[in-house]
Amino acid sequence: MTGTRSGAKRRFIGVDMGGTKILAAVVGADGKILGSAKKRTKAESGPANVIARIGQAIHQAARDAGISVSEVTAVGVGAPGPLNPHTGVVFHAPNLPGWENVPLGQRLADELDLPVFVENDVNLGTLGELVLGAGRGTQDMVGIFIGTGIGGGIIIDGKLRSGTRHSAGEVGHMVVAAGGPYCGCGRQGCLEAVASRRAIERDLRAGVASGRENLVNDLDRVDPGQLTSKVLARACRVGCPLTRQVIGRAQWYLGLHAASIVNLLDPQMLVYGGGLVEAMGEALLTPIRTVAQQHLIHQTSTPVQIVAASLGDSSVVLGAAVIAQRHWATASGS
Amino acid sequence: MTGTRSGAKRRFIGVDMGGTKILAAVVGADGKILGSAKKRTKAESGPANVIARIGQAIHQAARDAGISVSEVTAVGVGAPGPLNPHTGVVFHAPNLPGWENVPLGQRLADELDLPVFVENDVNLGTLGELVLGAGRGTQDMVGIFIGTGIGGGIIIDGKLRSGTRHSAGEVGHMVVAAGGPYCGCGRQGCLEAVASRRAIERDLRAGVASGRENLVNDLDRVDPGQLTSKVLARACRVGCPLTRQVIGRAQWYLGLHAASIVNLLDPQMLVYGGGLVEAMGEALLTPIRTVAQQHLIHQTSTPVQIVAASLGDSSVVLGAAVIAQRHWATASGS
Repeated sequence: MTGTRSGAKRRFIGVDMGGTKILAAVVGADGKILGSAKKRTKAESGPANVIARIGQAIHQAARDAGISVSEVTAVGVGAPGPLNPHTGVVFHAPNLPGWENVPLGQRLADELDLPVFVENDVNLGTLGELVLGAGRGTQDMVGIFIGTGIGGGIIIDGKLRSGTRHSAGEVGHMVVAAGGPYCGCGRQGCLEAVASRRAIERDLRAGVASGRENLVNDLDRVDPGQLTSKVLARACRVGCPLTRQVIGRAQWYLGLHAASIVNLLDPQMLVYGGGLVEAMGEALLTPIRTVAQQHLIHQTSTPVQIVAASLGDSSVVLGAAVIAQRHWATASGS
Repeated sequence: MTGTRSGAKRRFIGVDMGGTKILAAVVGADGKILGSAKKRTKAESGPANVIARIGQAIHQAARDAGISVSEVTAVGVGAPGPLNPHTGVVFHAPNLPGWENVPLGQRLADELDLPVFVENDVNLGTLGELVLGAGRGTQDMVGIFIGTGIGGGIIIDGKLRSGTRHSAGEVGHMVVAAGGPYCGCGRQGCLEAVASRRAIERDLRAGVASGRENLVNDLDRVDPGQLTSKVLARACRVGCPLTRQVIGRAQWYLGLHAASIVNLLDPQMLVYGGGLVEAMGEALLTPIRTVAQQHLIHQTSTPVQIVAASLGDSSVVLGAAVIAQRHWATASGS
């Protein structure tokens, strides 16, 4: 965060509202986390209760930082799904029952008596990495977060690209394998359908079911959809031929996808985050980098940088604090 | 073009430097073409001669407009291939022998004693459509030009996206069919490899060779690579089953590609130009629109507009005049 003289001692709160947990953090103008809190979302209890729990998490984080909420300048919230960042209305939040056109920003502002700014969570993760993480010093960057699904965000000229309908950044739903495997979105051949953890688990289970030799521990004992990135990373490390093949194929698709983005947008950097990147690090990124660079239409002496995110689970809360600070600075003319 | 009071009577020259012909036009601040000229490029004669011929085309266009070149305020040139718009150096121009790191802007500026601005030709075609064609009133637009290959340009917040390495806008080299047909670029599965006129002709000839029923006139008498968009459009119109199938497949890929761009960037409009679009019009665009909208991850009440370019062969010279005017306005503070 770029501390202005008048804002140097100000504090912002960033919130990451997920399907299972809410993270909140008090962040100084220098980007340091001064206090934090974690609460279960209890999504099944509905939007009003979830918003109340966000309020509680914010108060807890303030206590953890040794301040009261009234000493906070502004709040940023990262919410899943499409939303309008200008009005703070969440159009629809996947995995959160009842979240249809919920005025999250306004309700939380009323409850806290503070300015509240809302943005898509993965967009904020990307912004967090830009300002405080792997993308520091960059102005043009695309974030790609590989988890159960694949989400992302786009930064152009230092600003988040929201899009005409506030739906930019859906990197996981670019089609790389036309007519390929079905995707969670109901379509076929999206990156998410061939390279997400869910896709990797699907192919791994199919390989095991067909009798392929493998060293994946505990696959039988793990419920479908629950295979973790750590298990996958360990299987690769110990040389499991099936896991290596399945992840190798995902990496090939990720490399083609990276090249497609670079051929279209020519950003300075691609930042990869999410559980699989955290668990595997360079072992995941190196083949992506190789395939991507082979598929760039213009080979230049300074190829796109392909790097791992560095903020881990904090990227969204930090990005949320960044938008809170940026909006506050714009509104106050600082 | 947005005529400022001081610039209302100014004249700009736009040039489209192609592999076979050079087009030049004198354009008023209101975007009207006041005079034009066309010359063969004679690319085989080398960069110095081609630049001299551009100068001749500019003088001819000025004469056609009834003015002398000294009355022109600035010149814009659209050149094929990657280049640096800040220095006017063309890194490499496909199909133009000897064009490696040619300082086109500087040489032409010296010859004409005028400010000269250089930009990629397809980028300028996109900009021309934005300011004076199908995209008027739009700020966020992607141009997709389908010819022998497929090129494009990106407009974000009213500005051309050049990219970190001046290579943004290569829409034809986004991978839609991983592992699919080989592309002219040497890679596989690019949009250009499955939906350009070259790809359509390849598939059509393969179908004919395999004995498929068809109504394509004169295919035997046309040299490979020379099948025109008009012949393809006519074959579709008369109901040729093979042509319809082959073009239908290209349209499906174009629709998936459109959705990928919208899911990533969420622009207001996609503008399609080039020979095939001019020859087929809505018959080409309607299926692209249908497939694209099926593949948008966020269905909204105001879906992306998918429209045909409206400036035809003039899009590049008009876009070139637009950058000449914009750069002049910036430099002069108008």
